[in-house]
Amino acid sequence: MEKVGVFHFDAESYQMDFRGRVTIPMIGNYLIHAASAHAAGRGFGYDDMTERHTAWVLSRLALEVTEYPKNAQSITVYTWVDEVGRLFTSRCFELADGEGKTFGFARSIWAAIDLESRRPTLLDVEGLSIYISDRICPIEKPGKILPVENKTEGVPYMVKYSDLDINGHLNSIKYMEHLLDLFDINMFREKEVNRFEIAYQAEGKYGMMLGLHSIETIPGKYDMAICHEGKAICRAAVTWK
Amino acid sequence: MEKVGVFHFDAESYQMDFRGRVTIPMIGNYLIHAASAHAAGRGFGYDDMTERHTAWVLSRLALEVTEYPKNAQSITVYTWVDEVGRLFTSRCFELADGEGKTFGFARSIWAAIDLESRRPTLLDVEGLSIYISDRICPIEKPGKILPVENKTEGVPYMVKYSDLDINGHLNSIKYMEHLLDLFDINMFREKEVNRFEIAYQAEGKYGMMLGLHSIETIPGKYDMAICHEGKAICRAAVTWK
Repeated sequence: MEKVGVFHFDAESYQMDFRGRVTIPMIGNYLIHAASAHAAGRGFGYDDMTERHTAWVLSRLALEVTEYPKNAQSITVYTWVDEVGRLFTSRCFELADGEGKTFGFARSIWAAIDLESRRPTLLDVEGLSIYISDRICPIEKPGKILPVENKTEGVPYMVKYSDLDINGHLNSIKYMEHLLDLFDINMFREKEVNRFEIAYQAEGKYGMMLGLHSIETIPGKYDMAICHEGKAICRAAVTWK
Repeated sequence: MEKVGVFHFDAESYQMDFRGRVTIPMIGNYLIHAASAHAAGRGFGYDDMTERHTAWVLSRLALEVTEYPKNAQSITVYTWVDEVGRLFTSRCFELADGEGKTFGFARSIWAAIDLESRRPTLLDVEGLSIYISDRICPIEKPGKILPVENKTEGVPYMVKYSDLDINGHLNSIKYMEHLLDLFDINMFREKEVNRFEIAYQAEGKYGMMLGLHSIETIPGKYDMAICHEGKAICRAAVTWK
């Protein structure tokens, strides 16, 4: 079994933003799909995890993009495991456009939770380590993001039907969508998100009242959070260029 | 050139709702994609229309579904033109699951607008009529939907970055999403939307303040509207079973 998985996607016109570019949430979908399929092909997929009464949970994601693909481009995602620990495993991604040109990289950190307690469980370090690849992922690891919820008024948002994933929780991708919606449209006209980093801390549920927070810490760099009753359910850091 | 177009889609896990079922907005995406590809293969695609300084605009859509496909099913969409008029053309769809079993039908009405005036233009009736098929679409045509905006208080919603399509307008699919989000989650647990019908009346734009309206007219049947400054930009009718 090849250590590096290769997955192809077609960027459809209905998945584009107003600039005719693939969005960060859509790239997020591609990454999660590639990760799931890559794990499933190696005995660590959704069904394998369910059998062990566990499930993968995305803990952190850092994505760096130099140029967002345009409408009707095909996108290739390479993915591989780069580290396995007792509680977390790290998976990397490289993104290439239709001409084979690399336009981005991503790093993700995953934990396995017990389906009943919904608490972290120990990983099968030996089994997973077989697939570790030393392929290079030249972007910074997800780092610490400082709290912002005490520094800004949050924009209220209530979790809706269309926000829920197949497990009935706020979809990981929807966290990204709601955070990006905090930026003014002119920023998307004039700049690009160069790095998007997110740390998931708790599950959003139907009907939950959330506060969406964002603050520019240094020019072009935003620290963000989604909070429920004053506690962050996720933090994010976004760098524009 | 075959009159009926056939298109295949894979329902991915990240496109499912909390019930593990394909959503109406996602089916809407499939239909629009099939319509675009079918038209493009016959000289009436996005690029052909742009050359004539025109664009297709979805005016009405009625969708009837008997059973929503589950996760990881493949979906086949059949589409054909059934009527061509001076200002509108009617296109039908049949939806089949991975085993070839039909699970739904849809009817859509399209107009062509001039790209500068954004007003309706005359269609190439002769050119389009070549592709008319007499294949049966056994669901009712889109009908009249009564105003509801004076009967209910609207739920406020502001159009955001993630709502915009490639033309910078509120995405046709997002109208559906925001309307469906008005229903309580328990309705999705206990029932199914049997028929979803929508009539687009005006373009939603970034930052627009909208009011989302819904009223149950007879048990299980809802008339809905999205309004801006008291005027409907779309009306919808939803029947639950």
